[in-house]
Amino acid sequence: MPKLGIDLGGTYARAGVVSDEGTILGSSKTALSDRSPEAVVDAIAQATSGALSEASPVSIDSCGVGVAGQLGAGGVVRVAPNLGWRNVPFGEMLSARLARRVAVVNDLSAAAWGEFSAGAGKGEPDLFVAFVGSGVGSAIISGGRLVNGATGLAGELGHIKVVREGRLCGCGERGCLEAYVGGHNLIAQMKEQMAAGAPSLLWELAAGDAAQLTPSLLEEAVESHDEVALSIYCPAVNHLCLAIANQITILNPGRLILGGGVLMRTPGMRARIREAVAHYSNATSRAAVTVLEAALGDDSGLIGAALLSGEMR
Amino acid sequence: MPKLGIDLGGTYARAGVVSDEGTILGSSKTALSDRSPEAVVDAIAQATSGALSEASPVSIDSCGVGVAGQLGAGGVVRVAPNLGWRNVPFGEMLSARLARRVAVVNDLSAAAWGEFSAGAGKGEPDLFVAFVGSGVGSAIISGGRLVNGATGLAGELGHIKVVREGRLCGCGERGCLEAYVGGHNLIAQMKEQMAAGAPSLLWELAAGDAAQLTPSLLEEAVESHDEVALSIYCPAVNHLCLAIANQITILNPGRLILGGGVLMRTPGMRARIREAVAHYSNATSRAAVTVLEAALGDDSGLIGAALLSGEMR
Repeated sequence: MPKLGIDLGGTYARAGVVSDEGTILGSSKTALSDRSPEAVVDAIAQATSGALSEASPVSIDSCGVGVAGQLGAGGVVRVAPNLGWRNVPFGEMLSARLARRVAVVNDLSAAAWGEFSAGAGKGEPDLFVAFVGSGVGSAIISGGRLVNGATGLAGELGHIKVVREGRLCGCGERGCLEAYVGGHNLIAQMKEQMAAGAPSLLWELAAGDAAQLTPSLLEEAVESHDEVALSIYCPAVNHLCLAIANQITILNPGRLILGGGVLMRTPGMRARIREAVAHYSNATSRAAVTVLEAALGDDSGLIGAALLSGEMR
Repeated sequence: MPKLGIDLGGTYARAGVVSDEGTILGSSKTALSDRSPEAVVDAIAQATSGALSEASPVSIDSCGVGVAGQLGAGGVVRVAPNLGWRNVPFGEMLSARLARRVAVVNDLSAAAWGEFSAGAGKGEPDLFVAFVGSGVGSAIISGGRLVNGATGLAGELGHIKVVREGRLCGCGERGCLEAYVGGHNLIAQMKEQMAAGAPSLLWELAAGDAAQLTPSLLEEAVESHDEVALSIYCPAVNHLCLAIANQITILNPGRLILGGGVLMRTPGMRARIREAVAHYSNATSRAAVTVLEAALGDDSGLIGAALLSGEMR
């Protein structure tokens, strides 16, 4: 029976009716005018109505929402930085509003589950999914089941430490992988160099405008051997590559799936990850793994939230 | 119903009848006079008879054997260095000899499963188990299930790369964690320094005899601030500590269990791992994890092989 999936971003809520095979039967998007939990619940209710009427007639047997943040037990959102939330009983609020039980899941878990169910991971029960967007995250699927961890927080690839007492991360700790290679931090490092007045092709590519600096522009400058670009990109990408290659050694997945806004726009970074897996993962694990790009694009979270809710009933 | 577990080491085979609660009802050990597959199968058959008669009267509903090595499908032992085996159809041979189906499992998976079922991991469905003995390995249990990987080789913590193009490992690759902190390699590094004639308290502690050099003696010299000992121990233990702390961040286990011959004899190394988890794992994962020592000693592999065979029927 079809399921309802909700992808909650920082600027919009999108709802979709999803078949058990992962096809979107109807969907609708509502902008978030206000990020208070009450306003977000209203926006989701509106998007949900739109999705249900587009897919009508349809019956739904479960519902899930993917949220970028740390989740506690019982659908509580402990911290969601892009919504500015702390300890919001979101599952309860949304379940009451939609008059049905809503499973609250991590956005990357949802996206990984979407790729597993209907995307690049289909048919392979052992996956490692690595995402680089503004932040860095991952998800592990083992034997067709999501590895959740004891408190539902497994997959924090972005917060492994790659430099002892290194660069300060948004999480408040030092030396995290995300502090180097997350999109926000790649841009922050470019801005630091720009402010320091270091000569670089980057400033030409950005037409002197710091707001134009992006990870893909950084990669463009790297391919032209720009020194400032190399000084930011190489350590960041090296840390990412080694971290992913080592996870392949430890997890022995059948597929590695690469996704996220930064990674999808930086073919060089994806190529370097492939090389690192071929070179640094141990021989038996690298022989077993196929490296693929995420296939569902922006739909993965919505599809995954819907299908994952079916697993959690 | 009780199960039969077999722990196959490099010098002996031990068989035991194990209750579903993980109690050993009878056990027997046979020395390996010869490591050929045929002789090992004979030795196991002898140990099995001994265990069964000690536990008699008893009925067995499954049987498992833990082997230190890389396993292929269908009970094939692809590589078992301490037995000198390559591509041995061990599961078939042993099943024929014992006239019952025998599940062939990795020795560390068995030991981890033993700790999960009846030892330090009992009652906690999400575990990370790290072993340092002559080699380095790990096992992941998620939601009460062993993470096997796509080809059954998950857990190779010893072969993550910690130094690019670093020290040569026994696996033939460079820079593996095991090349620094595995017991064999800690001893090899001491011998290299002894041969190089560097002055050190180590040679006094070993009475000038290279055969007396052990990881616990290395730790003793470290506690006396011996420079040679520090130069070997610190990088090795730092790599181990960061690797384990980062796995805690990624896996979010409820317990970290430390085991293996080296780690059980080096309280300083265990203390440093605890400090690293407290300092380098991310805040939410370290809040969720309890660090414990393995509780079953040499029985973990036998108990785990027996109970894991029940899961694999």
